[in-house]
Amino acid sequence: MNPLPPKTLHGHSGRVRPVIDAVQPSLRPAEAILKHREKEAMEVRAHVLADGHDQLDVVLATRLRGERSWREITMRDQRNDEFSASWVPPSIGVFEYRILAWVDPFRNWHVGFVKKSDAGDPKIAVELDIGSRLLAEAGTRARGKDRAHLEEWSRFLGDHSRDLMQKVALARDPHVYELVRAYPDRSLERKGDIHRVFVEREKAYASTWYEFFPRSHVDDREGHGSFAEAAERFPEIARMGFDVVYFPPIHPIGNTFRKGRNNALVAESDDPGSPWAIGGKEGGHKALHPELGSLEDFRALLKEAERNGLEVALDIAFQCSPDHPYVSDHPQWFKWRPDGTVQYAENPPKKYQDILPFDFETEDWRNLWAELRSVFVYWLEQGVRIFRVDNPHTKSIDFWSWCLLDLKEAYPEAIFLSEAFTRPKRKYRLAKAGFTQGYTYFTWRNHAAEMREYVEELTHSPVSDFFIPNFWPNTPDILHADLQHGTRATFVARYLMAATLVPSLGIYGPAFELMENEPFPGKEEYNHNEKYEIKSWDWDRPGNLKPEITRINAIRKRFSSLRRLKNIRFAETDNPQILAYLKASPERREFFLIVVSFDGHHPQGGHVIVPLEGLGFGPDKAYAVKDLLDPAEPVYSWRGRKNYVLLDPRKSPGHFLRILPEGA
Amino acid sequence: MNPLPPKTLHGHSGRVRPVIDAVQPSLRPAEAILKHREKEAMEVRAHVLADGHDQLDVVLATRLRGERSWREITMRDQRNDEFSASWVPPSIGVFEYRILAWVDPFRNWHVGFVKKSDAGDPKIAVELDIGSRLLAEAGTRARGKDRAHLEEWSRFLGDHSRDLMQKVALARDPHVYELVRAYPDRSLERKGDIHRVFVEREKAYASTWYEFFPRSHVDDREGHGSFAEAAERFPEIARMGFDVVYFPPIHPIGNTFRKGRNNALVAESDDPGSPWAIGGKEGGHKALHPELGSLEDFRALLKEAERNGLEVALDIAFQCSPDHPYVSDHPQWFKWRPDGTVQYAENPPKKYQDILPFDFETEDWRNLWAELRSVFVYWLEQGVRIFRVDNPHTKSIDFWSWCLLDLKEAYPEAIFLSEAFTRPKRKYRLAKAGFTQGYTYFTWRNHAAEMREYVEELTHSPVSDFFIPNFWPNTPDILHADLQHGTRATFVARYLMAATLVPSLGIYGPAFELMENEPFPGKEEYNHNEKYEIKSWDWDRPGNLKPEITRINAIRKRFSSLRRLKNIRFAETDNPQILAYLKASPERREFFLIVVSFDGHHPQGGHVIVPLEGLGFGPDKAYAVKDLLDPAEPVYSWRGRKNYVLLDPRKSPGHFLRILPEGA
Repeated sequence: MNPLPPKTLHGHSGRVRPVIDAVQPSLRPAEAILKHREKEAMEVRAHVLADGHDQLDVVLATRLRGERSWREITMRDQRNDEFSASWVPPSIGVFEYRILAWVDPFRNWHVGFVKKSDAGDPKIAVELDIGSRLLAEAGTRARGKDRAHLEEWSRFLGDHSRDLMQKVALARDPHVYELVRAYPDRSLERKGDIHRVFVEREKAYASTWYEFFPRSHVDDREGHGSFAEAAERFPEIARMGFDVVYFPPIHPIGNTFRKGRNNALVAESDDPGSPWAIGGKEGGHKALHPELGSLEDFRALLKEAERNGLEVALDIAFQCSPDHPYVSDHPQWFKWRPDGTVQYAENPPKKYQDILPFDFETEDWRNLWAELRSVFVYWLEQGVRIFRVDNPHTKSIDFWSWCLLDLKEAYPEAIFLSEAFTRPKRKYRLAKAGFTQGYTYFTWRNHAAEMREYVEELTHSPVSDFFIPNFWPNTPDILHADLQHGTRATFVARYLMAATLVPSLGIYGPAFELMENEPFPGKEEYNHNEKYEIKSWDWDRPGNLKPEITRINAIRKRFSSLRRLKNIRFAETDNPQILAYLKASPERREFFLIVVSFDGHHPQGGHVIVPLEGLGFGPDKAYAVKDLLDPAEPVYSWRGRKNYVLLDPRKSPGHFLRILPEGA
Repeated sequence: MNPLPPKTLHGHSGRVRPVIDAVQPSLRPAEAILKHREKEAMEVRAHVLADGHDQLDVVLATRLRGERSWREITMRDQRNDEFSASWVPPSIGVFEYRILAWVDPFRNWHVGFVKKSDAGDPKIAVELDIGSRLLAEAGTRARGKDRAHLEEWSRFLGDHSRDLMQKVALARDPHVYELVRAYPDRSLERKGDIHRVFVEREKAYASTWYEFFPRSHVDDREGHGSFAEAAERFPEIARMGFDVVYFPPIHPIGNTFRKGRNNALVAESDDPGSPWAIGGKEGGHKALHPELGSLEDFRALLKEAERNGLEVALDIAFQCSPDHPYVSDHPQWFKWRPDGTVQYAENPPKKYQDILPFDFETEDWRNLWAELRSVFVYWLEQGVRIFRVDNPHTKSIDFWSWCLLDLKEAYPEAIFLSEAFTRPKRKYRLAKAGFTQGYTYFTWRNHAAEMREYVEELTHSPVSDFFIPNFWPNTPDILHADLQHGTRATFVARYLMAATLVPSLGIYGPAFELMENEPFPGKEEYNHNEKYEIKSWDWDRPGNLKPEITRINAIRKRFSSLRRLKNIRFAETDNPQILAYLKASPERREFFLIVVSFDGHHPQGGHVIVPLEGLGFGPDKAYAVKDLLDPAEPVYSWRGRKNYVLLDPRKSPGHFLRILPEGA
């Protein structure tokens, strides 16, 4: 007795002949999540093949996760066993897609039939009998009028008393073909793996963030700032061209082990503590710091933001001060030592002596996960749609996979920015787990060549299918040596690059636009860090960077090519201090050349090679370029590929050139 | 009530923190099969990461498919979340491998403990209590003496009356560390996906095939040839340096629709028919053509082959003449038309009017698959270990996946050569389904640049992890125009390339070594094709290519670097008719430079750029090269990177240069 094969292989009968391979886009591991921008076509490609010489029917099936039925579009045969489809998702949301393929017996019979009847095959009568049977089978899959037609045609083709020529004509009739094809036999269909994609709103890709501490003051007021006071800044922030206002945590701050000024281990009695040491007697992650205001005040703040075209982003930091209600109510969520303490949180080299980490190995993990997810839900229900998530790489990866998928299903417009300053594979893995955007190494790319290499990876490698970068020149945690020792030109250059290399950026202001640059001695941090004290800022201090920031943001807002991720193209230069790159709209109506110097102290000159072929210009063409960064918007006349630029930090660290189309 | 996560995610508890990604090598789809050469180390790499800052333990687990337990080797941390292991399979066979990863609480405690005790942490007593608990837990996983030690040490560390310094010393003792590490807590382990690899014997990679029709004659004898007569050629074939003798099908041939000479649709009464029209009243795929001999004769043939250091490869062609017993016994395995006929087999543009294809969509597929598999088993049980499989791309892909995996488990030394002259993705998919070797497009790569591009794909792309190429200058089906119009130099050049570009090659002889070149008019086929008639060959006809073939095969046999797949490296030349490439052994003891002209008619000269850095030579170094293709083995003195060659087809179409190591 011969051993029999199993009844199914990979979930299919052995009779199913097509196989599917190399689906693009798709990610590993299987649960990883792609990102895609709303309203744009997603190009799906795959290798679909079978034995023999039959033609294959291949469709791309899509649905919103949770829907029962799939919508299908035909995938085009691109020869050599490649099939493709261009799918425009109907909305934002968590979508699933898969490829289905089958051999349609009628279609393949029809191909042969046409050839044979063209060739005058003497056995055409037999072919008509087969056709009759196939039409009858299609009839059983149809209803109503269609069914009646198919049955009638089947009888006609199978009736040996009828005229052969008439029968051939009917069998070749395009209407007949179309109707039979509408009822295909898909019993032997291959069902490909299911892939997931977050279809994201525009802002998930292109956003302009402004971070500030609402407890600090917008002028020389005293005491603790409030939501109401913070909202007073919204018109100004909106005028500067920002569209997201991001606050550090706004919850009650613990007293036990509270940090003092400049990260001191012991706080003075009037020190406010770090907002990231969340939780006190007033509550935890779902409560508000009383001095900031009530829940009503917070809702008013959201309204005020909306009125100004801003969205408020909250900071979600899953960690607890020792005074957090979770610590007493759910001690099983923490890892206790024999002396009744919990090892404080760390993110080397940083030590957070004022906060306790959750133990993601707790046996009560299901309740912990559910509670953490409910924190997001609470603020989503207040109307918040953007979250900056603190140190997500110190929380379990599978937790994020579950939590973010779940949240995005219910709130597809939600945006989650991952603050994972960690190793690259961990950053990318969090993006695959569902984080919308991620902080990057932008701050630490301080030479033109390494900046180019990094941006190439972010925009032109498979990473761009799941990771959306957000470039920050500074944060409350990071004051890079380049800024510590930088000039105004350094600050403007960093802002210009953040704003044009990728479509999302953010600054921690007002420290950035006031060019604060005093470090804590020997560190890459601000001295007198606002994390540990309440500040009064003179937002209009002379020499501030508002004019440049406002100008750059306005250009970004005006031209859609500056808000796209994958359309960057670097240009060669002959000075390693100068970085040059192009951003163009698909139809080439917009064409920008950005040229930036990495030297904030000395003039740098060099040639830039303009890829004229991308412009549709001939090699000797003369054309006009206008520098939008300069308020005078001077127009220069350039010719050919190679053009000279001189970047003088006393004037400007870069050119933001619009190449004008012919006749402009 | 917060919604809870499921109890497991991807088969793991949510407490499991490590994740695994980007395993190399690994293939898609999941059931695809890698190939690996016996006795060689397989380098396995993966991204393994978790949240937080714990160190991970990662192992590569391997087993022969069907074994219950896994063997484990430690994967080394290569930084940046990459882990690697070098695994040498213990034997040939179907192996499975997967990666396992966990966080060892003891190891991570120990790292912190050492730091803290170095720093004189005042809370070291608490750490010792934790260590005591971890040792006690390890004790519960140990047995015998180990358990006793662990319990004793745990008690010591936990005994508050003991001296602190002594306890610290014990906790830091390497012996203690090693013993605890031998009993890790792996309850929260991530189990990676299972991958499969066929570990193949040397001959699966490096083989030298000689095809001939055993029914033809080795001299001017008449009538039908026999196994005994065929075996008379074995010593000569072995002397020429071949190690596989491959016969077209040796089964009974059908009478119905038998093909005549030159593929005539109607045979004369004495025409023997095509051996691929398998099955007659004497039996089918498990029977022998009576005139070739009995099963006993066949077994004697196998013995005779073995005596000569040859293996016999059989041709397995899953198709039936209308007279095959399957047709009457299992009519459900064929697709019948209303007139009681079955559409004959095709492989466009070829038509096989004498054979019926199986219907792989039959509802009786499980019995069909089992029967087809049993054909292999039948011949494997006679001692055959090599099969050339005819047109596998016209049989269902999942059938091959099941059948080949099953056969390789029972007969790991079996080799299956796929005769799939079809589109590239289908060829490669069959390799992923388990075929050992595949025919290639070698015959149709007739310019140096396209040959180079193709060989790069076969040897340096991911294809080389699952597809082992076999290069044939001719087959009974293929007489390329290059040979039709070629010179002796053309034949030698094709053979030299087949023998040195990849490690496996074959010829259809004696047509090749006698330089037969008469095509069927207007076709890429032999006239008076041996497929349809019995030939008498004068194997020693003057002008035959035996000297060159023998010489090239002998060099291949002598030097292992010529029998490896991935060690080829192309060299630049300044004449597009000249192809040059290097093959070196890993320790550089062997270093060959092969230079071939694609022009069989005119002399071609040009420079070859020798990559001296690969040789460890300086840029101006003088060195000796010996041409092994020339029987006189002349030695030339070369210097530096750029050297001139002149290839004259009247003398030789190429150089087979051994670059002699310094001092040789």
